[in-house]
Amino acid sequence: MQTDQVTSEIFPHNVQQTLDLIGIFVFALSGGLMAVRKNMDIFGICVLAEATALGGGVLRDLVIGALPVAAFTSFGYFPTPLVAGVVVFFLHPEVERITRTVMVLDAAGLGLFCVTGTIKAHTYGLGAVPSVACGMLTAAGGGVIRDLLAMEPPSLLRWDREIYAVPALVGSAVVAILIGMGRLTPLYASLAAVVAFAMRMLALKYGWRAPRAWHRNGSRTSEE
Amino acid sequence: MQTDQVTSEIFPHNVQQTLDLIGIFVFALSGGLMAVRKNMDIFGICVLAEATALGGGVLRDLVIGALPVAAFTSFGYFPTPLVAGVVVFFLHPEVERITRTVMVLDAAGLGLFCVTGTIKAHTYGLGAVPSVACGMLTAAGGGVIRDLLAMEPPSLLRWDREIYAVPALVGSAVVAILIGMGRLTPLYASLAAVVAFAMRMLALKYGWRAPRAWHRNGSRTSEE
Amino acid sequence: MQTDQVTSEIFPHNVQQTLDLIGIFVFALSGGLMAVRKNMDIFGICVLAEATALGGGVLRDLVIGALPVAAFTSFGYFPTPLVAGVVVFFLHPEVERITRTVMVLDAAGLGLFCVTGTIKAHTYGLGAVPSVACGMLTAAGGGVIRDLLAMEPPSLLRWDREIYAVPALVGSAVVAILIGMGRLTPLYASLAAVVAFAMRMLALKYGWRAPRAWHRNGSRTSEE
Repeated sequence: MQTDQVTSEIFPHNVQQTLDLIGIFVFALSGGLMAVRKNMDIFGICVLAEATALGGGVLRDLVIGALPVAAFTSFGYFPTPLVAGVVVFFLHPEVERITRTVMVLDAAGLGLFCVTGTIKAHTYGLGAVPSVACGMLTAAGGGVIRDLLAMEPPSLLRWDREIYAVPALVGSAVVAILIGMGRLTPLYASLAAVVAFAMRMLALKYGWRAPRAWHRNGSRTSEE
Repeated sequence: MQTDQVTSEIFPHNVQQTLDLIGIFVFALSGGLMAVRKNMDIFGICVLAEATALGGGVLRDLVIGALPVAAFTSFGYFPTPLVAGVVVFFLHPEVERITRTVMVLDAAGLGLFCVTGTIKAHTYGLGAVPSVACGMLTAAGGGVIRDLLAMEPPSLLRWDREIYAVPALVGSAVVAILIGMGRLTPLYASLAAVVAFAMRMLALKYGWRAPRAWHRNGSRTSEE
Repeated sequence: MQTDQVTSEIFPHNVQQTLDLIGIFVFALSGGLMAVRKNMDIFGICVLAEATALGGGVLRDLVIGALPVAAFTSFGYFPTPLVAGVVVFFLHPEVERITRTVMVLDAAGLGLFCVTGTIKAHTYGLGAVPSVACGMLTAAGGGVIRDLLAMEPPSLLRWDREIYAVPALVGSAVVAILIGMGRLTPLYASLAAVVAFAMRMLALKYGWRAPRAWHRNGSRTSEE
């Protein structure tokens, strides 16, 4: 298998598209719920749903030069978060009640998007390490934009949240290694996504967190 | 009229350019005033004036792939906010005193930029819905960047502010429909801008706000 | 010397690359230290190191259309901040202790990047004023992204911090003038970087600050 024939789709087109839209929908739900918590109106809910669901992919497409961005050209990408926004608007107590389910689906989206993001960056000519970075950006960038727009410290960067970047890193790295070995098949790509998904689920279940800097009792000088 | 002959200019070049620069100047004033309120120095004022005035168009140009961005290549786009920044630096009490006038001009800028943004996105090959999104991004994106840089909750997303996104949405949607019907003429484009402008003015006059999520007494669980 | 032969490298390739990586490393240290102060974990430290070190250049590359961005394609650009992040993770008290040295190196990075940023923008066809803006963006953009991700008011915009934008402005403007005169040689480019560096050092030594708006006792009306 020639690596330059790799596309950013790891499944048959229809399957890939359906999975993408499910992932986008779930990411959008988390954006919409944040907007409700922040007391935003219906338009704030939709803006945050869009930004959360599509932000990571938009950042990836911008830095790799895949313009116009897929968020605005792929079928269903843009309207889907609006549907999620309307769902949250009317049914947010119900959506809050199934937070557990939303988090499982969010972990699935994390797994899917870190894999497809890495592959897309590779197809645009990026090397292994930057492709991994793009995979992480795709999976985690939307959540950072969501938190910034809501004026919350980015949950990705907080030590007291279960690890999110690491599962994305692992999934992306597995894909990059497979590409490097010329062995990226749909099966292996799916397995990479499952690994990232499982790692995120385990992190949630067992409260895995990452270590903070050593010697935290160091002086707190004011920043330049 | 063939839609692929549509350009992002709806008026004769000189008129369009003058209108653009007026819109940019007024948006820059709102950025500069925010900087003064935040106690920033002359350079903070100019940075916020630039970011507010040009940020929306830069975001649009990035996502549609119109590079280098117009903010850096079109005549007068970059220097104009600097002039506004200097005006605010010396005359901010006077500018505050005419806030009412500034808001009218800001509403005019909103009308103009949602129309030109939608048209530009269309000329870069985007579909109707994403073009509408780009129109809104052009009109409202700069204000969001202004608020983020000033560490304010984005006023676009606050339920207790008069609607801003909706007039932009309506203006952009009218343009998209006109393009779809092959009937976008300078006259109709101007009317779309006037509709958005009028809607924003009415929202300000009558305090129109958008609804927040239903059942707001739902539990406030902690995020993700 | 023909200006269209100007490249964004002002020194022999190896020298330029080494200087770039040193500048990136030092910028990354300031991002990592901010992350430690904000109590972030090792991944937060690395993310903030990356964003601070590469953010300015990424913004410049996006707006001028130099895609994929150099941060992801130039040798060593992406891994260097990770090294800085790990250094901060293990040794942050020691790094804090040499804050003075870090600030000197940061000023050197400021000088280097405002010069190379201006030249790169010029080679991508931008005019003199936008090229200067790109030089400033390259030098100062990463720090703004660092502060936003850490939920701090951007130190670039605070009146009570020593001037940072002005030295970048001066260094960039000198380069733009040299380009305009067709006299940009490695020597002169280096001198421009030294001017920006020296100005920043003097600002730190003598506490140079920029003036705030006149008549600061004006009314504080609420923002639109």
